[in-house]
Amino acid sequence: NAARLPFCQVLSYSPSAGVYALRNAWAAYYSSMGISIDERDVLVTTGGSEALMFALLALCNPGDEVITPEPFYPNYRTFTMMAGAEIKPLKTSIEDQFQLPSPQAFEKAITEKTRAILLCNPSNPTGAVYSLESLRAVVELCQRKNLALIADEVYRDFVYDGQPRSIFSIPGASDVAIVIDSFSKRFSACGARVGCLVSKIHPIIDAATRFAMSRLSPPTLGQLGGLAMLKDPESFVKPMIAEFRQRRDVLAAELAQLPGVFAPNAQGAFYLMAQLPVKSSEAFCQWLLTDFSHQGETVMLAPGPGFYATPGAGHNEVRIAYVLAAQPLRHAVKLLGIALEKYQQVQQSSL
Amino acid sequence: NAARLPFCQVLSYSPSAGVYALRNAWAAYYSSMGISIDERDVLVTTGGSEALMFALLALCNPGDEVITPEPFYPNYRTFTMMAGAEIKPLKTSIEDQFQLPSPQAFEKAITEKTRAILLCNPSNPTGAVYSLESLRAVVELCQRKNLALIADEVYRDFVYDGQPRSIFSIPGASDVAIVIDSFSKRFSACGARVGCLVSKIHPIIDAATRFAMSRLSPPTLGQLGGLAMLKDPESFVKPMIAEFRQRRDVLAAELAQLPGVFAPNAQGAFYLMAQLPVKSSEAFCQWLLTDFSHQGETVMLAPGPGFYATPGAGHNEVRIAYVLAAQPLRHAVKLLGIALEKYQQVQQSSL
Repeated sequence: NAARLPFCQVLSYSPSAGVYALRNAWAAYYSSMGISIDERDVLVTTGGSEALMFALLALCNPGDEVITPEPFYPNYRTFTMMAGAEIKPLKTSIEDQFQLPSPQAFEKAITEKTRAILLCNPSNPTGAVYSLESLRAVVELCQRKNLALIADEVYRDFVYDGQPRSIFSIPGASDVAIVIDSFSKRFSACGARVGCLVSKIHPIIDAATRFAMSRLSPPTLGQLGGLAMLKDPESFVKPMIAEFRQRRDVLAAELAQLPGVFAPNAQGAFYLMAQLPVKSSEAFCQWLLTDFSHQGETVMLAPGPGFYATPGAGHNEVRIAYVLAAQPLRHAVKLLGIALEKYQQVQQSSL
Repeated sequence: NAARLPFCQVLSYSPSAGVYALRNAWAAYYSSMGISIDERDVLVTTGGSEALMFALLALCNPGDEVITPEPFYPNYRTFTMMAGAEIKPLKTSIEDQFQLPSPQAFEKAITEKTRAILLCNPSNPTGAVYSLESLRAVVELCQRKNLALIADEVYRDFVYDGQPRSIFSIPGASDVAIVIDSFSKRFSACGARVGCLVSKIHPIIDAATRFAMSRLSPPTLGQLGGLAMLKDPESFVKPMIAEFRQRRDVLAAELAQLPGVFAPNAQGAFYLMAQLPVKSSEAFCQWLLTDFSHQGETVMLAPGPGFYATPGAGHNEVRIAYVLAAQPLRHAVKLLGIALEKYQQVQQSSL
């Protein structure tokens, strides 16, 4: 009887911690990588963004500090501010392929207000994939200094010269690690808004679950869709990574042709930071949109300074996202070359 | 070519402020109520919860205060705390059918830290529908004292003895009002996780949009589903309200049979607060789950104190949600009557 009434066909809340079968599926997914995770270690969230927000809320009191390598995803600062805490950026450099700072540099940045080190591996915006050695050192440091290690691994599969690696694969990591994961990139399903927070530190899971209860539940439809995807991720991920590897190769080869452009070979995610022969990448990126046109076309780039907290840093860098297919990507880089040439002429003539 | 690759079939982010067509549809929906709203006044959110969170984040600095009638939805306190602010409860009483406090009582509660008055109308947990006169007085007070009026109207349609009313229908309200709306209750689609924040105060919309950008987008699937629903809401809502009215009537009639139980006739939403002949509703509700059983069944109620910030308040009250169909609802209240009788015997025999 009730079933015939239209309003009894309900799209209901899921549990606040996520659909149980999905928490189990995430656990099985990690287990398939040889990492011992069970469903109690998994909190399903509304995208990786919310997982990061909950981790920071669970860890930080007002005035606390979170150390992160710079350049970094700009919303790290937004979320940290929303949790009442502060980002302490630690400079990395394009000459060093944006690899992690030395353990000494990390240790020097730690104060009594530091609660966590936050890494994105593979990195948005740099495309760096951190070395095993450097990750081991950070895990050891976090253990010794009693800090949490927030590892944003939403691009984990996007590795082009080796195997994907979770921080959990490093001995001792489960004492300190809070992993941020998501369907968004892995399954090209950003709009599903489903991610998760994975940790063996149950007081963190418990605190995050309380925040999760306040927002009731993650989206039910996205969870059910993702549950199906998690059962056979490789069939989707393998051809996707092959495609992105090709894009990466095309982008690197094309950028290498441009005089004055320096872009270390991107190792992961689908971004790279490139140095351009310009004084201000912000002015150049704006000029591309307002003044430049070649046969009715232009290119759009993300100016470097947006990814730095240090004033003036990244002034001649841009972030390039290689989300286009190889052919339009090649075309876009050629257009960038034409634009750079034109821009240098304009700059010189205005002197 | 690209279309044939599986990874090019993408479930993408929507704009941070929501799918444009949906913002337009919400605006049209308000316009159909005679309220002048356009799409720039609408920010689509991940459920009403997020809209409330964004409103509080946009309004409050640490230490600020938000006044709300008590009893109130417990997450109001959670969200206010997450925004670094504090709830200032203003007592309402079951004898007065939980109607709004007097304008004088509101005015007395205002300090220099007060940023907003927060109302839920119709009310979760009380079922009260606030009188036109009392709403006018609050709007006038907010205008005079330069306060925001956050109106949580997610149960707007759930009114059984009159017409639904948005705060926007009150002259002057658009100067002060921030309305929280949602698909969850109206379309029995809690799991879609789609709501919105509606306001003519564009600095609030702008600030909320910045928070919205940090979480990237609301769920795409739920937005597309809801967009279809918003085109003909009445066909779904009308029979649903008729059904809930019947449930309300059944519940009220059954509760009236129980000695010592006082439950003013619920006017809206699908909740009511009832006074029970017990000293501690928390102890009684626990006893129902751990000790009581009648023919293998029991009933579950929400203890009153969870809806109060004032210590000791609501000690003999419970919240009843009438989300069951009329028949099981009748059965549940009969079971409650049997339980109350048994509980009084147990209490007396233990003296």
